[in-house]
Amino acid sequence: MTERIWTAALIVIGDEILSGRTHDKNIAQVASWLQVQGIRLAEVRVVADVEEHIVTAVNALRAANDYLFTTGGIGPTHDDITVDAVSRALGVEVVIHPEARAILERYYADKPGGLTDARLRMARVPQGAELIPNRMSGAPGIKIGNVHLMAGVPHITAGMLDALTGTLEGGAPLKSETMGCWTAESEVADLLRQVEQAHEACQIGSYPFFREGRIGANFVIRSTDADALAACAHDLRNGLADAGFPPVAGGI
Amino acid sequence: MTERIWTAALIVIGDEILSGRTHDKNIAQVASWLQVQGIRLAEVRVVADVEEHIVTAVNALRAANDYLFTTGGIGPTHDDITVDAVSRALGVEVVIHPEARAILERYYADKPGGLTDARLRMARVPQGAELIPNRMSGAPGIKIGNVHLMAGVPHITAGMLDALTGTLEGGAPLKSETMGCWTAESEVADLLRQVEQAHEACQIGSYPFFREGRIGANFVIRSTDADALAACAHDLRNGLADAGFPPVAGGI
Repeated sequence: MTERIWTAALIVIGDEILSGRTHDKNIAQVASWLQVQGIRLAEVRVVADVEEHIVTAVNALRAANDYLFTTGGIGPTHDDITVDAVSRALGVEVVIHPEARAILERYYADKPGGLTDARLRMARVPQGAELIPNRMSGAPGIKIGNVHLMAGVPHITAGMLDALTGTLEGGAPLKSETMGCWTAESEVADLLRQVEQAHEACQIGSYPFFREGRIGANFVIRSTDADALAACAHDLRNGLADAGFPPVAGGI
Repeated sequence: MTERIWTAALIVIGDEILSGRTHDKNIAQVASWLQVQGIRLAEVRVVADVEEHIVTAVNALRAANDYLFTTGGIGPTHDDITVDAVSRALGVEVVIHPEARAILERYYADKPGGLTDARLRMARVPQGAELIPNRMSGAPGIKIGNVHLMAGVPHITAGMLDALTGTLEGGAPLKSETMGCWTAESEVADLLRQVEQAHEACQIGSYPFFREGRIGANFVIRSTDADALAACAHDLRNGLADAGFPPVAGGI
């Protein structure tokens, strides 16, 4: 029986990441969250704050995946153009969402200036959208069809992911087992290939590292089938031990 | 006079990043390095270790940009398929590069097993390729046309970028000035838009943060023209001060 695999893509919107000034934290947190939902992150694109580039990426990735997520560009300033770009990609109007407006009215009621025009920009959504709750600050995220628009600031993104937990259909989570070994990966390339071939339901990834002046590698076995994973890990562990490669003490 | 803008794209190859297990470090380091070369990073894609996906990304991005970089997948193991994918994308054969073979022969001469078949995989290149020196470990990077294949391990990638420094034609580096302010970005949205509109040669990005229990934002002005940048920064700084928003002490 082949299980249905659910996939997602992520678009990170922001000149800040492309300039190298800000280190992205959303790829890893969205990826980890998706794992738990049983959804596989199939591709990430980081694109500039240019409407046309966002439109192209949205249309390519929402068609190719079960779910699409974006981070960034939903704030109140002139460089926040994600809602416009996604609306254009979907061929719908940009409208003010009444519930989002009400949320912002409450949020800004006791703040200087109240709900200004700039702040009201954060109630703009593609027509037909629902909101994703934001418990960290005022402006909600946005869900339309299979597209989920989230904030760029990592702790706000995290809150929106929390709000989405359990709401998306997924498959069996991909399980993994990692073993670290003090060896150059070139020493064990044949062994890795043989073990992977013997365990069809598993993939083995090999990730070299350099630590404490020594060369090592982590081998990550992945499968949706816990028994297959355990059998593959057993064979690989024995193979590494038989070949005399010392495991990394205390795990990876 | 409009200056020619040089662009690059980056493909990060690796299931490890998409699984969330490993936090990518190459996007930021490649982005920062490109800035200094006067080349703008226009797009990043993170793709899985699937040949077809890599081929698609390579062909889309090498055509749309002056330069394309890849990180990951050039090691000795079965999951290292970047050379195969890039060769297929370019329509050329995979061959053993004689100089790469010689480098690996020297590197493995005093190591157990010598130059095994698995290690010799690291001498495979798309036909017509040149090598990118690797001063950190044995296997070189690869340059073919406008495509640069680099290692996935960040400190090895860094060495390859060093080796490429000054070898790629670029334009005037994009300069930037950042000012931090204790304010919600929604308070200054109008000001930012006005100042940006008054300074055509500049873009202003607005990046909110939450720190020490307070809300703030960084405003980053970017331009290739130092005078335009200084004038824009002057106006924005005055505008923020006039509106009574306190700068973040000691900069950002």
